Amino acid sequence: MDIIDKLKKEREKVDLELMELCSELKPSILYDPIRHAVGIGGKRLRPILVRMVGRMINGTCNKNRYSSLAVELFHNFTLVHDDIMDNDDLRRGHETVHAKWDIATGVLAGDGIIGIAYEALLREKCNSPVNLFKIFTRGVIEVCEGQGYDKEFETRSDVTMDEYLLMIYKKTAALIEVSSKIGAVCAGGDENTIELCSEYGKALGMAFQIQDDCLDIMSTEEKIGKNYGSDVSEGKKTYLYIKALEIFNEVDKLRYLNIMENKVSDLKSILEVKELYLRNGVIKEAETEIRNWIDKAYEILDKLSLKYNTDELREFTGYLLNRDY
Amino acid sequence: MDIIDKLKKEREKVDLELMELCSELKPSILYDPIRHAVGIGGKRLRPILVRMVGRMINGTCNKNRYSSLAVELFHNFTLVHDDIMDNDDLRRGHETVHAKWDIATGVLAGDGIIGIAYEALLREKCNSPVNLFKIFTRGVIEVCEGQGYDKEFETRSDVTMDEYLLMIYKKTAALIEVSSKIGAVCAGGDENTIELCSEYGKALGMAFQIQDDCLDIMSTEEKIGKNYGSDVSEGKKTYLYIKALEIFNEVDKLRYLNIMENKVSDLKSILEVKELYLRNGVIKEAETEIRNWIDKAYEILDKLSLKYNTDELREFTGYLLNRDY
Repeated sequence: MDIIDKLKKEREKVDLELMELCSELKPSILYDPIRHAVGIGGKRLRPILVRMVGRMINGTCNKNRYSSLAVELFHNFTLVHDDIMDNDDLRRGHETVHAKWDIATGVLAGDGIIGIAYEALLREKCNSPVNLFKIFTRGVIEVCEGQGYDKEFETRSDVTMDEYLLMIYKKTAALIEVSSKIGAVCAGGDENTIELCSEYGKALGMAFQIQDDCLDIMSTEEKIGKNYGSDVSEGKKTYLYIKALEIFNEVDKLRYLNIMENKVSDLKSILEVKELYLRNGVIKEAETEIRNWIDKAYEILDKLSLKYNTDELREFTGYLLNRDY
Repeated sequence: MDIIDKLKKEREKVDLELMELCSELKPSILYDPIRHAVGIGGKRLRPILVRMVGRMINGTCNKNRYSSLAVELFHNFTLVHDDIMDNDDLRRGHETVHAKWDIATGVLAGDGIIGIAYEALLREKCNSPVNLFKIFTRGVIEVCEGQGYDKEFETRSDVTMDEYLLMIYKKTAALIEVSSKIGAVCAGGDENTIELCSEYGKALGMAFQIQDDCLDIMSTEEKIGKNYGSDVSEGKKTYLYIKALEIFNEVDKLRYLNIMENKVSDLKSILEVKELYLRNGVIKEAETEIRNWIDKAYEILDKLSLKYNTDELREFTGYLLNRDY
């Protein structure tokens, strides 16, 4: 079975298990929106990562099902609340919770989801449950801090590359790191293995986010499933933005900031930004940064392969990070 | 030292410890609102209850400080999000988080607070940490469900007394139950003791909430620190509302519903509601219900006194539930 089929099968399994976890709960005013948010799908990459890491370390390990659902619920909790904060009415082609119901319902549904996530984590028959809770809870705080930095950057024009990297680590990579680490902990990995899996998840997450920044302007709406160039029209502080301000000459910088600060959304302006990025080597720089994180991920897999069969994680890494434009 | 002084001293200690937990954290866009929400005070009854139960069971027990802060943070998390849901701009004479900043900040701050709460719980050197997490997490879900029911009741006129009692159990009493139970678990109480403390907290919480319903119309703004008769002007489904519909004759019911459904806020209407309640014995019924829960709380303390010195909890119960109009 190739990786695409494998992921599809695994995703459908996760979908079912998530629905099982949330079905028949009352009151419906709380759980209908939760079922909606959890049910509109997604790639389920985080729970799948938990399971793949588990299989690598201990092929017969089945002590990670609930933990893997917990990280997916955690992810859904952040999406429901982020959609309120960003005023986004659509996600994956469906109305977001606060758009379909109202903001109060969105706030409450998110809160309920993180409660269910913790309860799922508690059902795991793991040998070190406290460790599991520590890793998970640190993740909750990191993601809140990451969202905070992202929000802070909206009103700042002097964001440094280090600050940006810290922000995406917390906002995106931390939860992927948590998923990989939890997979290792549940499978009974030794300390060194847990550390390596943790670093692998972080590298994967960092590459994934910077790639996401590139896709916004280098791909097509069809491929990425959201508005083309939305980072430009929202004036977002992405990798490309920070790098552009670092290396553009004064003329290009003036033109660039004029577009970004006015949050224009016409195709002509977005294509001009793309041209500025390409001509000044911004995309190349981003690709190098992504490559570095991918290399790091593979290096860690090399280390893990001294002890484990890492084929599946290699396939997963390739699938995740070789998305072309 | 009398109970008032004792509570004041203990409250100040909790205030300091909470501030210590939240100080110097970054980014300020996340933690300033959190420090604001956590810092505007309150009676800190929940963490004090954790500590009092701890002292009763094991006088030298100091393994509950972090758990007690965790339940107070949990309480603050619900307040910050409830204020968004209820569109309340003031709490304890201070601007609420979403009013002082914005809704996005309020959502994020609440999320951050529950993260910090879990992290505090993780710092506790308790002998049964997993149990602690279970109790706490069940509390999170109960409170969300309680808030859900409360929200559902806004649009229903056929709420039964059983439904009302379930709602206030989940929304208010569950967290007081959790506090008392966690106090017993941290102090190393045996199973029977933990169960009794749990029931005691529930009884306390139920009496407290029904009393709150009464105070809204029987007390003065000065004493309760919020608008007089706000439950009437908001048409809230309180104990008094449910009981009124149970026992009013048709004429009184018509008049009553006319006021409640139009959410009028003039003093004359509110005083008319008060007169209807008094004349029909609604307040008497509520007082009997409160008395039953208080009696239950004292009965449990009687059982506990076979093994422990319950003087402090008796004083606490008296202080909490003998609030006069």
